[in-house]
Order: sequence, then C-alpha cells, then structure tokens
Amino acid sequence: MSISYENALISGRHMICDLKQIENITLLNDVDKLKEVMDFICDKYNYYILQKIEHIFEPQGSTIIYMLSESHMSIHTFPEKNYIAFDLYTCRSYPDNSIYNEIYDYLITEFQSLKEEPILIHRSF
Amino acid sequence: MSISYENALISGRHMICDLKQIENITLLNDVDKLKEVMDFICDKYNYYILQKIEHIFEPQGSTIIYMLSESHMSIHTFPEKNYIAFDLYTCRSYPDNSIYNEIYDYLITEFQSLKEEPILIHRSF
Repeated sequence: MSISYENALISGRHMICDLKQIENITLLNDVDKLKEVMDFICDKYNYYILQKIEHIFEPQGSTIIYMLSESHMSIHTFPEKNYIAFDLYTCRSYPDNSIYNEIYDYLITEFQSLKEEPILIHRSF
Repeated sequence: MSISYENALISGRHMICDLKQIENITLLNDVDKLKEVMDFICDKYNYYILQKIEHIFEPQGSTIIYMLSESHMSIHTFPEKNYIAFDLYTCRSYPDNSIYNEIYDYLITEFQSLKEEPILIHRSF
C-alpha cells in the first residue's frame, strides 16, 4: 500500500474547542456525566481508552483526561465562566475533517453551547 | 486590581510543539528521562502536578500525561519518526509569550530537535 506524501507527514489531527456560553449547567457540573460524553465519543469512533484520570477542584471546576491508544482527550471545566476547554488529539488518519466536525456538533448539542469553529491542527512529523 | 478586557477573556495559553528530527535518541526512548524533562519544567515554572500517567507501546512509542493544577502537559513519542508531540496548556495569565518561548527553547536543546515555531493558542472563555 502506498502512502501519500501528505499522509506520511501527518502525525494526527488535534481538535481544540473552547465551548462557551454553556447552557447545560447540570452536565457542566457533573463529572460522571462528563465522562459519559467522553465515553460516547470513544465508543462511537473506536478510540481505545488506556487510562482515565480526573480531579475535582474546590470550590468548583474539574479536569478529566483520557489517555487513548490514539493519543488523548481532555476536558477542563470552568463553571464560573460557563466554559469548557475540550481537546481531542488522535493519530488516526482520516480522509477529511468530517469526523471532527461530527464530534464538535455533538459537543455543541450536548452542552448547548455557542457554535463557533473549532481549531483543527494537523500535527506533522 | 483591575483586569483588562483581554485578560478577562483568556482562559489560558496552549503551546503545541511538533518536535522533529530529534537527535537525542536516548531521551526519546527513555520514559524516566522524559519525565525528568517534564518535572524540570513543572519545577522551574511552578506548575503543580496532580497526577502522572504513562503508557509504553509495543514495539515502540510512549505517552506521558501530567494533570496539572494549571491544566495539563503531554508527550507522545514516535521513535520511528524521531518525533515527539508535546503539549502544554496552562490557565496561567502571563504578560507575554516569553515563558513559552523559554520552554520551547529548552525542549529543542534537550531533544536536539529541529527549531521551528511552536503553535501558541490563546484559549478564551
């Protein structure tokens, strides 16, 4: 199987989402429900979870990080700002950005947050 | 203390580095030494480490993720490509990018890798 020059240089895609003006406050403040969102993505797109870690801050806010076979996914919540910093970096080779757009749309729907454009970085060797 | 409009919108800075053409092969392949690099950065810049996780892949490659009070730092190694994907996201408020540039220069020196420009993203609420 030949590998195109472009693919040979791509180590993966990294999607960075600043989820703003979140209206689903229940989800924003519930670590177990946040993990359900992350689990759903991993299950649907076949990302294999190696390890999960989480931390709940006082008086508010949480961090959840999934180490994946395909790299990592992270959530940092800032309830006082109705905001989540979401990252998904995978070393999967996809023909286009459609799966990332699907995941972004899913996040926007679940969190009822402002729809913007996520940042999508092509990481390269 | 007044908070400037810009600072009020910044949730942190996220530095994304594709460390290429790494010549320090010993470091690239040694998880304990990689953690020493990460520990050095945390110690020097006062990032508080909440949890560390790591995974060694077969036949090669490793992932190390540090969950920080200030967000996270991650390394994914691809020894077959002499490459590391390095991320540092912190919610610290800095007056400029100088600390990130310092950290980038430190990484380039330690790994003896190609000097490029890291990607620096201002994440916003």
